[in-house]
Amino acid sequence: MSTPSLDDVAHRVQRAAPLVAALSDAQRRNALVQAAASIRRHEAAILAANEQDQESAAAEGASPTVVDRLRLDANRIESMAQGLETVAALPDPVGVIVEQRTLANGLAIERVQVPLGIVGVIYENRPNVTCDVAGLCVRSGNVAFLRGSSGALHSNKAIVAALQEGFSDAGIPVDAVALVEDVSHENAIAFMQLTDVLDVLIPRGGPRLIRSMREHATVPIILDGDGNCHIYIDEFADLEMATTIVVNAKTQRPGVCNAMESLVLHESIAGEMLDMLSRTMPEVRLLGDERAIALDHRIEAATVDDFSTEFLDLVASVALVDSVHDAIDHIARHGSGHSEAIITRDQETAELFLSRVDAAAVLWNASTRFVDGGELGLGSEVGISTQKLHARGPMGLAALMSIKWVIRGEGQIRS
Amino acid sequence: MSTPSLDDVAHRVQRAAPLVAALSDAQRRNALVQAAASIRRHEAAILAANEQDQESAAAEGASPTVVDRLRLDANRIESMAQGLETVAALPDPVGVIVEQRTLANGLAIERVQVPLGIVGVIYENRPNVTCDVAGLCVRSGNVAFLRGSSGALHSNKAIVAALQEGFSDAGIPVDAVALVEDVSHENAIAFMQLTDVLDVLIPRGGPRLIRSMREHATVPIILDGDGNCHIYIDEFADLEMATTIVVNAKTQRPGVCNAMESLVLHESIAGEMLDMLSRTMPEVRLLGDERAIALDHRIEAATVDDFSTEFLDLVASVALVDSVHDAIDHIARHGSGHSEAIITRDQETAELFLSRVDAAAVLWNASTRFVDGGELGLGSEVGISTQKLHARGPMGLAALMSIKWVIRGEGQIRS
Repeated sequence: MSTPSLDDVAHRVQRAAPLVAALSDAQRRNALVQAAASIRRHEAAILAANEQDQESAAAEGASPTVVDRLRLDANRIESMAQGLETVAALPDPVGVIVEQRTLANGLAIERVQVPLGIVGVIYENRPNVTCDVAGLCVRSGNVAFLRGSSGALHSNKAIVAALQEGFSDAGIPVDAVALVEDVSHENAIAFMQLTDVLDVLIPRGGPRLIRSMREHATVPIILDGDGNCHIYIDEFADLEMATTIVVNAKTQRPGVCNAMESLVLHESIAGEMLDMLSRTMPEVRLLGDERAIALDHRIEAATVDDFSTEFLDLVASVALVDSVHDAIDHIARHGSGHSEAIITRDQETAELFLSRVDAAAVLWNASTRFVDGGELGLGSEVGISTQKLHARGPMGLAALMSIKWVIRGEGQIRS
Repeated sequence: MSTPSLDDVAHRVQRAAPLVAALSDAQRRNALVQAAASIRRHEAAILAANEQDQESAAAEGASPTVVDRLRLDANRIESMAQGLETVAALPDPVGVIVEQRTLANGLAIERVQVPLGIVGVIYENRPNVTCDVAGLCVRSGNVAFLRGSSGALHSNKAIVAALQEGFSDAGIPVDAVALVEDVSHENAIAFMQLTDVLDVLIPRGGPRLIRSMREHATVPIILDGDGNCHIYIDEFADLEMATTIVVNAKTQRPGVCNAMESLVLHESIAGEMLDMLSRTMPEVRLLGDERAIALDHRIEAATVDDFSTEFLDLVASVALVDSVHDAIDHIARHGSGHSEAIITRDQETAELFLSRVDAAAVLWNASTRFVDGGELGLGSEVGISTQKLHARGPMGLAALMSIKWVIRGEGQIRS
């Protein structure tokens, strides 16, 4: 069978969108339940396809991290299916009336949540994204138009086939999810320029993808950007708590966007804190400014770029500051607007930090690793927005909705 | 005095933004009240500057419509001042907690409204936009970075000077509003590419501006697009009401985006309706499809493009349809997603239309002219969004806000 062209897939998606938008709550809910059953039923086929992708990746000399992100196993497939069921059980966002008023002239005004329409996602080697995004889109009356990486193509095709079978079982349009199978670079650019098709495009990938989007995309975008997440340890911090949180945020899963990348220390506790960290996470390389190095000779010299780098590895930058104000300034200069935390026992200092730091998420005495759709109760997530428009932070169902003004009158005209 | 460079103005705006975001409700409210007083105090200077702009426009052979959009008088200045006072009295959008939950692990989660930061607006010859946008921005803790047209430069400078004097009287940063005074074409493009400065850019202008934005802009955009607004007269319409509404929507102010441009008639009432309209608005040229012309020989033949055209004049397209479904399809093909109305006495038909038509605003038995921030209770408007992301329809204070996740813990880490 030949690979369908981008145009063909786009036409199918466009036909499906109004039909999916008009489905009832029960129909969309049932579609996800059927899709979960189908994913479980097709476990063997999905694992076989994934095996092919892993072998190609290994043959091309991909790093263990890349192969790990690609790998599916029975547990990961089960958690994809459970993810669909969790999202199926969430309250229906379609048709929710967010505001209702009657004007003096008698006009009845409502602002009602409606689906965005066609949601495009470009993403890299994580096949579970295929399932998570499709589930959130269909639950919210949207169509998912997906462009995964070439390295995960077999896995993605098998997952989409299983989802479509579930949708068919539920009697909803199978094109509620569609996959771009021609994964050439030229086609990626054509995808970013489908202005009459995509209502939004969400890129999930590294700096190269983001640059390419900035250069080529003509459709509206929500950026799922870098996470250069800071933890600031204040002079009034509980240092035991600080150590526990830093170790969790840095080492539990260093390759993800909500891991800590930069440590900011109040000078009064810096020496003690560095001692505690060198005992509890000796495997982490620390790159520091001059003041940090003067305190602890195990710290290597950081370049200016290091303070703005998302290492995604067992590496962190360290900067010393004289006050919470300096910490806020440091974060404003180097942060990527993802997640920024303060550890302190002092409420006033904490609230100052929470209100003045400009990021998608700010945390007080908690690990940055909590900034995640699943952890925060969204079921799963389409991504984590680091921009300020439309959606900011973990994006669940609410991020996939638009608004419509509905105005009911009795013949009113404007004077 | 030499014209300040774009970079200089950008730096001033960037310094002001965090200060404006940190102002209290009372400070921002008072700033608008003082600005209104200052606008009134400087009426003579503003009118003199506006006179210069009008003379230049007339000398360059501008059309009466263009000169009218440019013209200020004592009434228009008073209504600018009153607009500031209305917006000052609106509830504070900053810091509003839109969601609050405590997770099972004890984390307290809030989603809080925060200002976007720096709001850029590019607009054409309407000096009142300068005042409206500045008022909405400052009320919501944002900075207004404005790039008006060369034709309104004197007026805009005089208005910004008055606003800044008011802000100074209120003790808030004068750079809460800033005007780009170098209005060259190259500078407009540079403005659209201020990615480190602008949190959002809102274009208010014609198709040429929109095309230029699509081509050059690298900052996030909210489109204030065309209004090819339809009114569908259903077979169950009250034809007297329909006539009144169509005449209001078409003729009351033909040059605005919420005026009716396209009439869609159910075939069963089309003949009678066209008779009534030829009596009540004989000055309007009607361009119709073959079925319309067959009914009424005064109708001229429409091209396909006419059905997608925003005439902004005493002209309208007319199409006949056999059902509400055909009307919905016609609007889906030709509409611009602004405002679409149905006139009918049948509730079921009305609700079908309201739910299936995909536009910023849908209306039942009311004039499209109501789709306006002032009319709908927003105080004034930054524009009318025809896109689906972030804001849709008239944009008031809510459209100028972003969200921040605030997470408070007691040492929680992720397992």
